[in-house]
Amino acid sequence: MKSLGVIVEYNPFHNGHLFHLTESKRLTGAEVVIAVMSGQFLQRGEPALVSKWTRTKMALSNGIDIVVELPYAFATQKAEVFASGSISILSGLKCDNVCFGSEQGNIQDFERTIQLMNEHKETYDTFVQEFIAQGYSFPKASSLAFLRLTENKEKVLDLTKPNNILGFHYVKAIQEQKSSMRPCTIERTGAGYHDPEFNDSSIASATSIRKHLFDNSGNIEKVQRFVPEPTYDLLGHYKQHVGSFHQWEDYFTLLKYRILCSTPSELSAVYEVEEGLEHRLIHTMKESSSFHEFMTKLKTKRYTWTRLQRMCTHLLTNTKKDTMLKVSASKQSEYIRLLGMSKRGQAYLKQIKKEVEIPILSKVSGVENEMLDMDIRATNTYAMKFQEPARSDWMLQEFSKPPIRYDETEARSI
Amino acid sequence: MKSLGVIVEYNPFHNGHLFHLTESKRLTGAEVVIAVMSGQFLQRGEPALVSKWTRTKMALSNGIDIVVELPYAFATQKAEVFASGSISILSGLKCDNVCFGSEQGNIQDFERTIQLMNEHKETYDTFVQEFIAQGYSFPKASSLAFLRLTENKEKVLDLTKPNNILGFHYVKAIQEQKSSMRPCTIERTGAGYHDPEFNDSSIASATSIRKHLFDNSGNIEKVQRFVPEPTYDLLGHYKQHVGSFHQWEDYFTLLKYRILCSTPSELSAVYEVEEGLEHRLIHTMKESSSFHEFMTKLKTKRYTWTRLQRMCTHLLTNTKKDTMLKVSASKQSEYIRLLGMSKRGQAYLKQIKKEVEIPILSKVSGVENEMLDMDIRATNTYAMKFQEPARSDWMLQEFSKPPIRYDETEARSI
Repeated sequence: MKSLGVIVEYNPFHNGHLFHLTESKRLTGAEVVIAVMSGQFLQRGEPALVSKWTRTKMALSNGIDIVVELPYAFATQKAEVFASGSISILSGLKCDNVCFGSEQGNIQDFERTIQLMNEHKETYDTFVQEFIAQGYSFPKASSLAFLRLTENKEKVLDLTKPNNILGFHYVKAIQEQKSSMRPCTIERTGAGYHDPEFNDSSIASATSIRKHLFDNSGNIEKVQRFVPEPTYDLLGHYKQHVGSFHQWEDYFTLLKYRILCSTPSELSAVYEVEEGLEHRLIHTMKESSSFHEFMTKLKTKRYTWTRLQRMCTHLLTNTKKDTMLKVSASKQSEYIRLLGMSKRGQAYLKQIKKEVEIPILSKVSGVENEMLDMDIRATNTYAMKFQEPARSDWMLQEFSKPPIRYDETEARSI
Repeated sequence: MKSLGVIVEYNPFHNGHLFHLTESKRLTGAEVVIAVMSGQFLQRGEPALVSKWTRTKMALSNGIDIVVELPYAFATQKAEVFASGSISILSGLKCDNVCFGSEQGNIQDFERTIQLMNEHKETYDTFVQEFIAQGYSFPKASSLAFLRLTENKEKVLDLTKPNNILGFHYVKAIQEQKSSMRPCTIERTGAGYHDPEFNDSSIASATSIRKHLFDNSGNIEKVQRFVPEPTYDLLGHYKQHVGSFHQWEDYFTLLKYRILCSTPSELSAVYEVEEGLEHRLIHTMKESSSFHEFMTKLKTKRYTWTRLQRMCTHLLTNTKKDTMLKVSASKQSEYIRLLGMSKRGQAYLKQIKKEVEIPILSKVSGVENEMLDMDIRATNTYAMKFQEPARSDWMLQEFSKPPIRYDETEARSI
């Protein structure tokens, strides 16, 4: 079976995702699609709107055949680490292609740019350090350094665009890991405009969908036209059972507790808490009565909002520097955790089983692995939003729950 | 001024406390009374019903002249450490007498028993180890060893009684610290029976008063006849502003978060988490949906309920073994934190000022001290029950709040 990998968060799965999936299948002729998906916490350092299990159901009911979890050690990191973890998993699952959305929309531009960067690595690094010395954040300095390096050069990537940056690291990781996967890309801006089924009014970004939900007290009707029917049903079901969608404010009390009941040296041992920031965290938290207020007061020119949110996520999940550096050093996942599959997905896994070198985990109880312990702590943290006794049931399920099996005969056509 | 020290929790201040205070003053002829009072967490390993500030007001409006805080490092410990910290503070404040309630009611029995114990220390220690080897908890083994040592001896203490145990350690600490304070004791059982103002129906233990409050959804009317009027008014005021009284269940989510989002080695670094208990904590917490359920499942013959509750308090406040052992090694407080005073109390402090060797703190901002940091973390933890923005205001006050000054002309006569 010809296989395609996609790297996703599906927070939540919307019409734009469906368009990307349909187009990717058409372009590559894939018969089976594997999604590597972030777990409970996302790359921007936020809790997912709904749990990874519900997002797995969204994926399966919209045409994905296999959903595997991107471990916390990669999912909550900057683009480079996020990409290397994702690619190691898709490559480990023997995908023929990997297809990502980008503002550029042309895979040759990615390959050409990476070659250029490889040839001028030292000059580029010097430029980055110069911009950092001028007080720019790391992402901004990287972007400015790149602009200077590529001045007057044609057909290079626009690396001020977030999806181009991710794509750049996907392609780079494929090369570095000597993977045989073929990358391809679909233009993201204006995606769907030319397709009769996806007009202007049916596509909205996940960010704007989440904003719609939170601005309307979790009322899901406002987002109905932007999401496929299974997503709409699953959002409704989640809302009914949990009461509301997950957002940072739900975890503010825990974050405050973590910051104000730790010593400065304990805080500085947390991943991404850079030198001296521990005192600023304590001082700022004392005067903040919401997560938004805290972040607004914490923000400086030096650190991006996303960078600080990721740091907060690591504080919340108690992720230490030494552990994170140890587990993410290899840049490759130590296991592949299966969250769900269709019958076709199951057949594909059976087919590739003997070639796969990374252990595939169907459930986590009894497995001892430091990288996996981080996923478990992330799920335990995420579950703190729930009320008892549902919370205990939910945590216990995390250990014993087998992957979701999705019967394709029930699947809605895409 | 002739001064008297009392060691209290006032959780809450009730008629029995008032009786003890009145009797102590009468017996010693004291002109000024100093109470060293536990802060937000108590010796049984529980959060106080109401904050230390409200309990300070209860004390001052019932005839106490000076209220100082017993640091967390002593307040949440077994009797021996609790006593040595308390005595060091009262002695530091130049009290002439210290008066405590006991089941024995006779100070000579305490002195005689301590002398006996000093003379047979080795035999006693051997007995304790024998009973521990038989599987008894430390307090139970101590009590059995003592019974064996004092078989057929007359006029020794009944050390199966909790207040006798505390009193024993007060008198012992006075001797060890070579303090010039004179101890005295008032019989506790049946206290008030002989006094016309305190009949059977107006005295109830703090435990039964708290039970009354929690069994009746915090309805304070049921406890009115057991507490002086200022206590009743202050309980009503607290209930109105905070919504409910503090109890362990309010902190269950934080405890669950602490236990399930820490590594086993982080848990085993917490004070009182004995070898191997960290795995039991994680395992038990996963299956518990309330504090009571958790404790019931955690309880074994080896550890008393109180011992386990204290361990939970240390988990909640993030109190590490190394820090606790360091700060409580000297068995004496490094500072005296003033919570409140009457005019008479203020005059007394002015009088003794030059003789006092331990620093007296009126507020904590700017003071760097590891023992004090524990008090601050305890207050921050305690405040997690509150809703924002009241919580932030409350935490900030902890740093800047001066001692409560109580005008005696307002004082109700006792």
